[in-house]
Formats: sequence, structure tokens, C-alpha cells
Amino acid sequence: MEHRVVIVGGGFAGLQLAKDLKCPNLSITIIDRRNHHLFQPLLYQVATTVLATSEIAWPIRAVFRGRKDVTTLLGEVVGVDVEKRLVSLKGGHAIPYDTLVLATGARHAYFGRDEWEPFAPGLKALEDATTIRRRLLLAFEKAELETDPQARAGLLTFSIIGAGPTGVEMAGIIAELARRTLVEEFRNIDTTSARILLVEAGPRILPVFHLALSQYAERSLASMGVEVRTGRPVTDCTEEGISIGDEFVPSRTVIWAAGVQASKAAVWVGAETDRAGRAIVQPDLTVFEHPDIFVVGDTASVKTGEGMLVPGIAPAAKQQGKYVAQVIKARLKQRSAPPAFKYRHLGNLATIGPSSAVIDFGRLRLKGTIAWWIWGLAHIYFLIGTRSRMAVALSWLWAFTSGHHSARLITQKETLKDEV
Amino acid sequence: MEHRVVIVGGGFAGLQLAKDLKCPNLSITIIDRRNHHLFQPLLYQVATTVLATSEIAWPIRAVFRGRKDVTTLLGEVVGVDVEKRLVSLKGGHAIPYDTLVLATGARHAYFGRDEWEPFAPGLKALEDATTIRRRLLLAFEKAELETDPQARAGLLTFSIIGAGPTGVEMAGIIAELARRTLVEEFRNIDTTSARILLVEAGPRILPVFHLALSQYAERSLASMGVEVRTGRPVTDCTEEGISIGDEFVPSRTVIWAAGVQASKAAVWVGAETDRAGRAIVQPDLTVFEHPDIFVVGDTASVKTGEGMLVPGIAPAAKQQGKYVAQVIKARLKQRSAPPAFKYRHLGNLATIGPSSAVIDFGRLRLKGTIAWWIWGLAHIYFLIGTRSRMAVALSWLWAFTSGHHSARLITQKETLKDEV
Repeated sequence: MEHRVVIVGGGFAGLQLAKDLKCPNLSITIIDRRNHHLFQPLLYQVATTVLATSEIAWPIRAVFRGRKDVTTLLGEVVGVDVEKRLVSLKGGHAIPYDTLVLATGARHAYFGRDEWEPFAPGLKALEDATTIRRRLLLAFEKAELETDPQARAGLLTFSIIGAGPTGVEMAGIIAELARRTLVEEFRNIDTTSARILLVEAGPRILPVFHLALSQYAERSLASMGVEVRTGRPVTDCTEEGISIGDEFVPSRTVIWAAGVQASKAAVWVGAETDRAGRAIVQPDLTVFEHPDIFVVGDTASVKTGEGMLVPGIAPAAKQQGKYVAQVIKARLKQRSAPPAFKYRHLGNLATIGPSSAVIDFGRLRLKGTIAWWIWGLAHIYFLIGTRSRMAVALSWLWAFTSGHHSARLITQKETLKDEV
Repeated sequence: MEHRVVIVGGGFAGLQLAKDLKCPNLSITIIDRRNHHLFQPLLYQVATTVLATSEIAWPIRAVFRGRKDVTTLLGEVVGVDVEKRLVSLKGGHAIPYDTLVLATGARHAYFGRDEWEPFAPGLKALEDATTIRRRLLLAFEKAELETDPQARAGLLTFSIIGAGPTGVEMAGIIAELARRTLVEEFRNIDTTSARILLVEAGPRILPVFHLALSQYAERSLASMGVEVRTGRPVTDCTEEGISIGDEFVPSRTVIWAAGVQASKAAVWVGAETDRAGRAIVQPDLTVFEHPDIFVVGDTASVKTGEGMLVPGIAPAAKQQGKYVAQVIKARLKQRSAPPAFKYRHLGNLATIGPSSAVIDFGRLRLKGTIAWWIWGLAHIYFLIGTRSRMAVALSWLWAFTSGHHSARLITQKETLKDEV
């Protein structure tokens, strides 16, 4: 009989696993509550009007068009029956499995301050990006209509909380938006007067990078007009602004880039979790006492050889997907299991501005334009399909040469009462 | 003192007017409740996954980047004080004018059956297109999960109500989507079994075209698998399907392409209206007893030389914008007013399928591939900016050569209770 592998989540880990897992007598079902795989490393560029939504998202079923052994289902998983080996979907469907792989990712989290979410949206899904995009653009629009100078200043202050790569990258593009892209288009406000704050509770930005690169990034951001505030945490967040330590800063647009919380997948299968809700897994990425259930990607708490947590980045997720494919194949062919999963860190990358980036490969460290080109080519290489590569390359070429961004749309309806 | 022209609406009429109206001592304010000008003739391609939202929508303020005399405001007009000459915005702002131009367009209308709207969305704004796109794609997704054959058939029946150019164009692309684009991607359903109904109450499709072209289009659609139903009106519309005359057709996805209703602009200024809410205007497109207020585009009821209503299409709106610019310029320079507005009909165009179209220039009539090329080049020519032209050309080239559509995203949240 056919061995049924069910993969929940079509992110980097799930997709890589399905791609690698091509075996006779094996069928794969991918379940995702969205119809698309999202290229999250570039999501911040959708949030900041550089890229269009469809340039970094592809229907999961289109990726597996030629693979008759792969079935894609759009559905929201609500639970797993580990005894009967059934995945329950919202709406009543139950999908049977022989091997289950949970790759359901993470959401942004507010360290117990969930009441901040309406004022400080995070960035994980496509709708998060269009929400942030709408707020960014609306702030300038409202400022153009506003006559009170104080209210206008609050509208033209943008705060990004958290200075990992995503926070740094967003601060850089927002600075470019205010100082270059929008500057000729407003009549009542001077967009170059916009304040962009990058707030980090820790002692420095880009903490996982080498100190020299982190300092370089800070100087670069400062030269672009970004105020970098390190060493004090955000203590409050309201519709009117944020508090950094004791200081209140009026800021009507706040973006959250500080913390993540794993999906509830660990709860479905009764796995032990760490503080961020990640399932603590065995060395082969299975759940304790459930060798037929794997947890991978941002939902899994996996340690490196040095005892550090494997970071929640795309290459780590892909490596785990690849590894689980090997384990499942070995089992089906009744060969001995591969050795424990070992994470190989390739490096850290972050863009700072329109033509600057920092890359930390450990021994090799790069910064500036050369790093930006490597960053850009690497990201284009990892996109799915020629079509997307051409579209993203065109969008970047356009933004780079003209300074104009091609996806400056305000869409969606707003729930906050004060929005236009 | 500077003469203040306020234009409400950044559609084809308003944009053309602002472009043409470049005078010393004249300032222009464009107010729109959206931040973008929308290229409506291609909106159906967003609804049917061929084009991305940002490919056919541009920030209005970006269009007038170089024009310091043009101010763009994002705001929703709630009324006009014709005595004090003030336009009131939601939120309390009041914008003074010397000359007011209302170019606020139209919305789809349900001929008094507004209760049909949740089940049969129409297509006017960008969000309408993404709503239709989501429903189209969700129908296939749900059918893939559905085990009951009858329910599945309802999910795989798509009805388009109204067979003007928009209805015909959507039916053609949905047929292509089902018979070509999606066919390799589903495992439980055969997407080629999808029924696509094009329902028209009148005796034939494309009624404004020459009979021969209308018959050609009907044959072409039939060969693509579209069921064309003419001569009987839709009498009911529910979540489960539509009634055509006495016949009930289970159809979970219904698209409305049948009627429009003008915006409320006529009411703001107390103008007399026709049945569709359009303001009845003077020969110079001003409102009776208000020579300082013009109404143009889909909001105006304008007659051709033959006493017919000027159609609600982009070229007509542009001609009216151009004309009003001449009138305002003549007034400012105290020259005699230009003769009454005269509409010049350029022709009717509609695509039928991926490489077929019909064009009716009156004496010259074209159909098939040659018409499609003329249609495509004309539309690319009228897009704004090199960037959009390149992006749309790339999307079409891709769809044409590979059959794959590049904007197959399900986004937005759903309000109907049964959605996944």
C-alpha cells in the first residue's frame, strides 16, 4: 500500500521536503491555509512598496503542477488525532497520514503585550505586508491634509521596533521613500522632514552580525536619516505613539519587527515546547514517542552543534525539509537512518539602503555595494521560476534607476476608527 | 488671485482634465477617495489572475509629480456647498473652489435587487477585482476538497451576468483558466469539466457591436466551452446559484457585469438626474444654473449628436476631460467659449479569448488574432509609464506562451460564512 505523507505548511521547509521526497509508492498531501508559498525574505519590500504581492508569492499547487504524487489542499488544520493518524481541517474534513510533517511556521509575537498589535502590525503574511504598506502611505496622505503642526509631526514619525535584519531593512527603505521617492509629490508637507526611528532594546542593531558590520550598518542608517535608538526597550505602544523607556515619542505609524511565536502545531500533537511555543524535537526532528511525526522550520526548537538555537531563517528551514526527506526515504527503503540533523549556517545577510548591504559569512565579511549585489543576485536566484525572477529584477532595476516604487497601492479596508 | 479648480475623482476624465489644464494663475486640487488611478479597461484581467494589481493602478500624486500647480488629496467627499463654494471631506476638511469638476464615476448596480450583491460581486474598484479573484480560485480549491458530486458541480459552475465587453472578456479568461491554466494542478477534480455560463437578458451578446461580430464572439465562446444564454433575464441570485427565467442553476460563483449606477455627485450639487443617477448637464457639461460646476465621465448624462447617451467608456471620459479644460482655459483668458461638447465615437473593442478579439470601428470591422494584437497594443499604449507597459507586456507574453497566470493569489478576508 501507498505510504501517505501529509505536510502541513507550504513554507520553505514543507516545500523543500515535498520537492526532495519523490519515491515510488509514496503520496504527498500538502495542506496550507493559504494558497501560496511566500518568499518571506523579501516580504518587507512588499510592505515598503518596492515589490508587488504577486512577485513573491506563488500558488503552492502550481509549484507541484508536474508532480502527480503531490496533492495540494487549501485548508486550516485545527487538530491532529495521533492515535487514528488523522489531520482535522476546519469544516470537518479529516486527512489520514502514515507520516506527518508539521511545518506551520511562526507569527510575530508581542512578549505578552498583545494589546499593542493593532498599533504595531508585524510582518509574516502577505496581508501583513499590505497592511503596513497602507499605513505607511496613509500617514503621508493624512499629513498632507493635516493643518496642526504637532499632529502632522506625529503622522510623519515612523517607528520600527526591533533591529534584526527585517527592522533594519524596513527602516532603510522607509528612509528612501521619504527622502527620495515621495519628495516631489506633496505640496503641503516636506516628506524629507519625516522621522524614522529604529528602536532596539539590545545594545546594538543586527546583533547576530559581527560588531564591525553592525556598526557600519548603524552609521549607514544614520547617514540616511534614520535615528537608531539602542539599549532601551519599548515600554508602551498606543495609537498616538510609543514609549522608549520613560520617553514618549508621538508616532502614528509603528511597525513590529521584534519577536515571533511558533504556530500551535506542538499543541496538536502534545509535544513539549520552549518559551516561544516551538516543539522540542528529537535529533531526527521527530516528536518524542511519535516517530511518525516530524516538526520542522520555525515551529521546531532545534539546537546547533554549539548548543545554540537554529535560527528561524529560510536556509535553516530548507535544510530541515531536505533532512526529513532523507529520513523518510531511508525508512521506506528500510535502510539505516541518517545521522542526527546538523545545521550548517551559511551566513547572515541584510540590506541597509537602496544599494548597500552587509553580509557576514563568518570569516568573510562584506559591506556596501558589492554586498548589495551579492544579496540581490542570491535572492533572485532563490525565487521560484523565470517569471518571478524577471519581474523582481525589473522592479529593482526600476527602483534603483528612477527612485520610484511600482507598488504604491493603498488597498484593504481599515478597522482603526481614525483612518481615512 | 489664483483661480482654484477642484477636481473630484482621479479617473480617466479627471486625470485628462488635470493634464490638459496647465495655465498661469491657476491651481488644481484633485481629490479622490483612493490613492490610485485605475486602468479600468484591464481590471477584468486582475479579477481573472492574469495581471497584478499594481500593474494597472498608479498613485495619482505620482502622475503629477512634476506639476507643482497640482495638489493631490486623499479624501472622501461628503457634500458640496454651492453657495460658499466649498467641498466637504469626511473628517471635517473643507476645500474651497472657484471651479468644481465632478468626475466621480459609477458603481455597479443591481436594478433594485441590492440583496444580490453579496452573491454576485461586480467589478469597478481594485478590491472588487481581488474579491472576484479570490472567489474564482476558492471555488476550485473547495471543489478539490468536496466529496459530494452535486455540491462539487455547484462549485465548478461559474456564472457571469451581463454580456457586454466585461462579461464576455471574463467568460473567456475563466474558460481558459479552467481548460488550460489549472488543468494539471488538481488531483481530485477535472477542471475542464467546469461550466461557464454567460447570461444575457437581451437577444445577443455584445449588443453595441455589429451583429456579425456579436455572432462571431458567440461562436468563439462556445468553442471555448462557454455556455451562452441569451434572451432570458436572471430572476434570482442566492448563495446556491442563479435563476434564469424559471430555471435554477446551482452556481456558487457568480459575477455581476450587468448594470451601473452613477455616483452621488449629482445629489451634492442638486443637479437633475436620469434613471441611473447621472447628472443631466448643459451642452458645455456644466450643471444648470451653476456655470462654475462641471460634471464629466460616468457621472454625467451626455447625449451624442444622434441623441444617444454617450457610453461610459474611457475614451468618452477623456474627451470630456479634454473639453472641460478648453472651456476653463477660454474663460480664464476671457475668450469666447468653445462650441458644445461633441462626442466622437472611436469604436468598440472586446477580447474573447487568449488570442482573439473583436473590433468594431463602424465601417471597419476586425476579428480574431489580428484584432487581438490591435487590442493589446492599444491597451499597452494607453497605460501610464514605461514601467507598467513593460510589466503588462511581460505578463501577457508569459500567459500567452506558457498558459500560466502570474497573479493567482487568494488574499483578503472573507465575510461569507462558508468560505475557507
